[in-house]
Amino acid sequence: MKVFIEPIGRLINEFTKLPGVGSKTAQRFAYKIINMSEEEATAFAESIINAKKQVKYCKVCGNFSEGETCDICKERTGDTICVVKEPKDVIALEKAHEYSGVYHVLHGTLNPLEGIGPNEIRIKELLARISQGGVNEVIMATNPDVEGEATAMYIASLLKPLGIKVTRLAHGIAVGTDIEYADVSSLSRAIADRRDM
Amino acid sequence: MKVFIEPIGRLINEFTKLPGVGSKTAQRFAYKIINMSEEEATAFAESIINAKKQVKYCKVCGNFSEGETCDICKERTGDTICVVKEPKDVIALEKAHEYSGVYHVLHGTLNPLEGIGPNEIRIKELLARISQGGVNEVIMATNPDVEGEATAMYIASLLKPLGIKVTRLAHGIAVGTDIEYADVSSLSRAIADRRDM
Repeated sequence: MKVFIEPIGRLINEFTKLPGVGSKTAQRFAYKIINMSEEEATAFAESIINAKKQVKYCKVCGNFSEGETCDICKERTGDTICVVKEPKDVIALEKAHEYSGVYHVLHGTLNPLEGIGPNEIRIKELLARISQGGVNEVIMATNPDVEGEATAMYIASLLKPLGIKVTRLAHGIAVGTDIEYADVSSLSRAIADRRDM
Repeated sequence: MKVFIEPIGRLINEFTKLPGVGSKTAQRFAYKIINMSEEEATAFAESIINAKKQVKYCKVCGNFSEGETCDICKERTGDTICVVKEPKDVIALEKAHEYSGVYHVLHGTLNPLEGIGPNEIRIKELLARISQGGVNEVIMATNPDVEGEATAMYIASLLKPLGIKVTRLAHGIAVGTDIEYADVSSLSRAIADRRDM
């Protein structure tokens, strides 16, 4: 005899597709759904379908958008472009409330081992935006890992000959981290990139 | 400007309703949904609606069931009844592959402080099953907490005058736990309930 009846087994299986969710957690999620009212469960299911249907990508910057162009591209001037790997990086940067320019989402980073070259990510779209003029600075905000660094350097090498100022997000000791516990990579970046005071 | 566009914000909000899911985890889940294919996302949403629609409770034992009567009640003889708090306890016990009798799900335990008395849980349904005859033993498998113990003792006090053998799941040191690290309650139960060898 199977342990779970089919609809519960199927629901548990679907939940295990979420990142970091094993079978025990998926079971707890499934029980929660079964204990919801019919309206709550329907609202949950609809929010999944709606998110999938309504979330598009901005044709200018590649960010999440409900319409053809995202709110950021509509409302801000484009003299500074911040280049990120994924739409969720835009959300993280927006939460910092420090940047008021526009974005460009690459939807990936260069990764020759996995066959991801310059044509597989949105680099030519970035060049096209810049060729329209009015861009003073491009901030490279790809992750500080091998692929992110390589991508930042590659794009910088394309933009510098065009006379565009290219900058990179500062890396160093995370705010709130004791020097004692900072990881080696962050510490060495913090020393190398030290600034006058 | 809001950080999340509406369909993503709504999806994140729905995910935070799951047990143990905070806003960061809910964000990760939402990004995963958005990166799914339309078919995958639809299958996910449908599994939620189907689970809610198709999962009923067995009219005999109160366990999860697709039909009026669950597979366990259909396939097994009812001379031993194992009494549990919730349907998920049936699943946990079934996974142990040690018990081959039927179950009775109370859908709660006695909790006077929250106004849950004998009429609020499925005790009279249990008595009705037993009054039909053929039951030799009732195993009380409610949780070893205050409410679970009180419920087990209350039901035992009702059944013993009827000449029914009432037993309780053994509590003690969990298998695989070092005595050094066992909690005090489990250790004291293990000593009190020690058995001949």
